[in-house]
Amino acid sequence: MNIIGIIVKKKNKRELSYAEIKYAVEGYISGDVKDYQMSALLMAICINGMTFEETCNLTDVMLKSGDILDFSDVKGVKIDKHSTGGVGDKVTIALGPIVSSLGVIFPKLSGRGLGHTGGTIDKLEAIPGFNVNMSEEFFHKSIEKIGMVVSAQTKNIVPADKKLYALRDVTGTVDSIPLIASSIMSKKLASGADIISLDVKVGSGAFMKNLDDARLLAETMVKIGKKYNKKVVAFLTNMEEPLGNNIGNSLEVIEAIETLKGNVDNDFSKLVIYFADHIISMAYDISMEEAHKKVMDSISSGKAFNKFKEFVVNQNGDVACILDTNKFKKSKYVVNVVSKEEGYLSTLDAFKIGLISSKLGAGRMSLDDEINHSVGIVLKKKVGDYVKKGDVILELHTDFENNDEHIEDVYNHISYSDKKVEKKLIYDVVM
Amino acid sequence: MNIIGIIVKKKNKRELSYAEIKYAVEGYISGDVKDYQMSALLMAICINGMTFEETCNLTDVMLKSGDILDFSDVKGVKIDKHSTGGVGDKVTIALGPIVSSLGVIFPKLSGRGLGHTGGTIDKLEAIPGFNVNMSEEFFHKSIEKIGMVVSAQTKNIVPADKKLYALRDVTGTVDSIPLIASSIMSKKLASGADIISLDVKVGSGAFMKNLDDARLLAETMVKIGKKYNKKVVAFLTNMEEPLGNNIGNSLEVIEAIETLKGNVDNDFSKLVIYFADHIISMAYDISMEEAHKKVMDSISSGKAFNKFKEFVVNQNGDVACILDTNKFKKSKYVVNVVSKEEGYLSTLDAFKIGLISSKLGAGRMSLDDEINHSVGIVLKKKVGDYVKKGDVILELHTDFENNDEHIEDVYNHISYSDKKVEKKLIYDVVM
Repeated sequence: MNIIGIIVKKKNKRELSYAEIKYAVEGYISGDVKDYQMSALLMAICINGMTFEETCNLTDVMLKSGDILDFSDVKGVKIDKHSTGGVGDKVTIALGPIVSSLGVIFPKLSGRGLGHTGGTIDKLEAIPGFNVNMSEEFFHKSIEKIGMVVSAQTKNIVPADKKLYALRDVTGTVDSIPLIASSIMSKKLASGADIISLDVKVGSGAFMKNLDDARLLAETMVKIGKKYNKKVVAFLTNMEEPLGNNIGNSLEVIEAIETLKGNVDNDFSKLVIYFADHIISMAYDISMEEAHKKVMDSISSGKAFNKFKEFVVNQNGDVACILDTNKFKKSKYVVNVVSKEEGYLSTLDAFKIGLISSKLGAGRMSLDDEINHSVGIVLKKKVGDYVKKGDVILELHTDFENNDEHIEDVYNHISYSDKKVEKKLIYDVVM
Repeated sequence: MNIIGIIVKKKNKRELSYAEIKYAVEGYISGDVKDYQMSALLMAICINGMTFEETCNLTDVMLKSGDILDFSDVKGVKIDKHSTGGVGDKVTIALGPIVSSLGVIFPKLSGRGLGHTGGTIDKLEAIPGFNVNMSEEFFHKSIEKIGMVVSAQTKNIVPADKKLYALRDVTGTVDSIPLIASSIMSKKLASGADIISLDVKVGSGAFMKNLDDARLLAETMVKIGKKYNKKVVAFLTNMEEPLGNNIGNSLEVIEAIETLKGNVDNDFSKLVIYFADHIISMAYDISMEEAHKKVMDSISSGKAFNKFKEFVVNQNGDVACILDTNKFKKSKYVVNVVSKEEGYLSTLDAFKIGLISSKLGAGRMSLDDEINHSVGIVLKKKVGDYVKKGDVILELHTDFENNDEHIEDVYNHISYSDKKVEKKLIYDVVM
């Protein structure tokens, strides 16, 4: 077996065996397969695709490239969730406490943001003192004690994916369903969870720009998970406009807190509750109606918010901010962007709004940029809302004195229509 | 413009502009575009192809990556030839002196052999003392004085191709018509010739395994050459069996010498004469019949052989060997491989026979292997010949005492049939 033969085989649209995929991936990790050979193979996979069998085999080889977490000694159903990434996606921060307050174990490894999207780790770090770097022992003890923990990815989880993703990022080989599915699923399968919940976002702010591709990705991931005897659910959800009203790190934490307190009724809170219903239904094998009752009770009784407080305290976060969100550090300025037109808001481009928020300092354009936790955007109107001239569409929470460029940018990426635009929050659920 | 955008464009089957191709190739030479990015782009080109316009633009960018030779001060029509490579291909050594003896200037840069194929430089070095490394000045003076020179490629001719070819070789991206056409034509266009003669070999011993691909390659190269106002001819010729009877360095030089002396009548001598006819016809704008008369006269009169002697003397080769080929150093052993069957020889696999010759020491499997100039194979029978049990099919000229493995290898790659196999030496000519 040699790597050139394997590359040529995929170039010629033939199916690779488990042994060939293993040879390529393990060789790449060891350095025997060079990066220029792996990038040629990745491009051949991007263009010629992979069968489901190949995608499963790639997932398995990646999964076995590093540590596989084991929480079998911790009582209760463990859940892991993943979002393909979007703008305003603070689901983990609200969903974790809800399901955890209902006895489902939520051991979460999260990432940082890049480009137009944020990362859960960055958002949680907006809480003063919050610690995301911990020992394996602390992680383990936390899920036993609290039932919920969120840690930055430091362990040797799927090192093959880290190396492959870095290469894909610079070789134009990111958008391939087999590569995305195996990347996500190898990490989810390595996390030791019983239930895997996948949020496949669709639209301008997402990886997947169209529903057909998103559906294929969701179906592929669910099928892979089932082969490993996991309970898997994938949601196809709207990322044409940002999720919820707040974008930016402390702004998003505040929205999550208000949701846990039962004070929010928007697309974000709806999505969190919908996800929680599914997870509770799967965890306890009960109907969606029963699950929904439990979820709503967890919020209205304060159990979910209390679980969040426990979680923050456990990771050394300043609970005063949680109890009174006014204590979060504010941006220097809040600039209203007002409508110049009248009509139904029909576009609020998630990708562009995400980029503007990043440029204000809420995100990073390159991996070593510093994050400004206070800045971001608060949407006062969402797609479908009727807007009059002079109405505030959104607020820029900014530390810049001059925001003309960003305001102009906003105007360039919103549009109006005469009739109310139909929009769907959840396109489909794949199980 | 950025390289990832260019890669993704080709991945998505879109046409690259001149500026984009230039950006990619020049970036690759300067190091701004990494090898892993270039290999991804090469794979996308292999799978998705290139339009003729793109292929021309790639050729032009490569051509301009290095020096372009200029012999405009040397009187006479200059010709450059190229073979896509095969087994027993010593055409340059016989063709050069013939056309040169008829006044056509033959300034040739040649390469070394690798794998199952030999290289003209290695073959000429079988002549004791023969020097292939020379100054630009010597090269130039030689074509003025002798009209023929063969030099190893040392000048900065198409450095982009050198770097790209090395990468293609290890990333499974060799067999792409746009990449092959631009690689060959950029070098031929840089050589400063007026006439370009291309031998596109087809069959087991060649790059191109089928006639359709070979024809497409030939047509592409001829079209490119015409865009640069060159006279171009491409021959599609048979490489299912080795060309001529001798394979191996001094053995091939001897066959070329005997051809120049008019002592050979086989597929090799026929091909050389056919090529020479075309070149002379193109150079002097005369009919093929007239050209053929000149070519045959050059051989029968001894003019061609005399030109060869001049050429060898000019490059410091031992002319005694040329005058008496028995003076070439011989292999230690000559082992007859005799037929175990009776019938018409139907296969004499060029690729495999070439590999056996390489394994005897006539070629190199890796770039730093030493060549043994004395060893090789002499075919006593060719495809279509009637063979009886016990007839010698071929001789192994070898320095090994034990050749069992190679003999077995020969038996595995010959076959017989009841009826004489039709074979064609020249499939087509593209002009």
